[in-house]
Amino acid sequence: MKIGVLGTGTVGAAVATKLVEIGHEVRMGARDSGNEKARRWTSGAGRGASQGTFADAASFGDIVFNCTLGTASLDALRAAGAENLRGKVLVDVSNPLDFSKGMPPVLSTLQGDSQGESIQRAFPEVRVVKTLNTVNAQVMGHPERTGGDSDLFLCGNDAEAKSRIRKLLAEMGWKSVIDLGDIRGSRGMEAYLLLWLTLWGALGTADFNVRIIRAGDGLVSASRPALG
Amino acid sequence: MKIGVLGTGTVGAAVATKLVEIGHEVRMGARDSGNEKARRWTSGAGRGASQGTFADAASFGDIVFNCTLGTASLDALRAAGAENLRGKVLVDVSNPLDFSKGMPPVLSTLQGDSQGESIQRAFPEVRVVKTLNTVNAQVMGHPERTGGDSDLFLCGNDAEAKSRIRKLLAEMGWKSVIDLGDIRGSRGMEAYLLLWLTLWGALGTADFNVRIIRAGDGLVSASRPALG
Repeated sequence: MKIGVLGTGTVGAAVATKLVEIGHEVRMGARDSGNEKARRWTSGAGRGASQGTFADAASFGDIVFNCTLGTASLDALRAAGAENLRGKVLVDVSNPLDFSKGMPPVLSTLQGDSQGESIQRAFPEVRVVKTLNTVNAQVMGHPERTGGDSDLFLCGNDAEAKSRIRKLLAEMGWKSVIDLGDIRGSRGMEAYLLLWLTLWGALGTADFNVRIIRAGDGLVSASRPALG
Repeated sequence: MKIGVLGTGTVGAAVATKLVEIGHEVRMGARDSGNEKARRWTSGAGRGASQGTFADAASFGDIVFNCTLGTASLDALRAAGAENLRGKVLVDVSNPLDFSKGMPPVLSTLQGDSQGESIQRAFPEVRVVKTLNTVNAQVMGHPERTGGDSDLFLCGNDAEAKSRIRKLLAEMGWKSVIDLGDIRGSRGMEAYLLLWLTLWGALGTADFNVRIIRAGDGLVSASRPALG
């Protein structure tokens, strides 16, 4: 499959690398053509990896991943171009975190809204699927780093788009992906980041994730050390 | 131990019932003395159960649980009286959910703030501990309802207060409680409610909770059915 990845940071590189590893052709997009990080990634990632502008990556991909910073995503997507994204599946991995007032960051969205929804509103002809934003970049392509089976979430308005992304996530190693319904599910998935950030501090590692425990799961707990 | 429980709704009744069951003296507080729900609870809960106003319950308890609706909590605590709460441990179970614009509810707090923090600011001489707000009322006193070990969170500025509440939570059946640091941890714990509500809809049950999966946990997964 041809996949565009917008963003050259930690998240973009982690996602793009995994997608190449599992056999896809991936074009990494940056604001400017010839971006140094994108060129470095391309030469390191090997066969199937290429780079270009946001528009190049968007027009290349049948599926496009938004891995840009949350606060820069709408600008990046406008640069990618609505005409290059039309009808495509856009996987929104971004988190609307505002670090401008120091740590801890706050959500840059208003209550009752989300990044996923604002992208879907701005690009009504794109099929937005929100996923992967609830785990660290290194865990996105390596769920085994958490040391046990955990759950990923996904939401979006288009069932066929979610089904395609669910298959891609399975290729990436995700055994359990919980469908949270339409794109409004982004609100909870993004708000959870505030808990994630606090847990990161409390646990001292980003190699963690949540697992939903409910009756009938057949979960057996062995020798679990005390946390916190 | 003498414990005051503010609030006569589902959460107040579930918490107060569990606390009586494990041997504590519990006074349920309502806006008005002789509140019908509080009287019904008292007659059903048996020995150790009593009821009165918010102020009665606050002055009775060495520990006080805030189980009122999030949007009504500051009013309820003012009615309970700063003089009755001074120096005490206040366990804030409330969630700042605003249902006034329909479903799904939104958080009534501003980005960068939380209910836990606003209560601590309004009552600086009270030692606020936020916990239990991340699970359904029926799960609060019966973590086994989720069918497997899961994690509870706790935060607050006072270490001794958190230590006391940790012991009480262990009596209530919670084997793992993760300390998220000072009261600002409330932001993530409350924001998570938006994810919780979406999961409730997706799973079709409120008998669930999260477990934090991280390397070294020794978690063994048996036959787990597919979710979502």
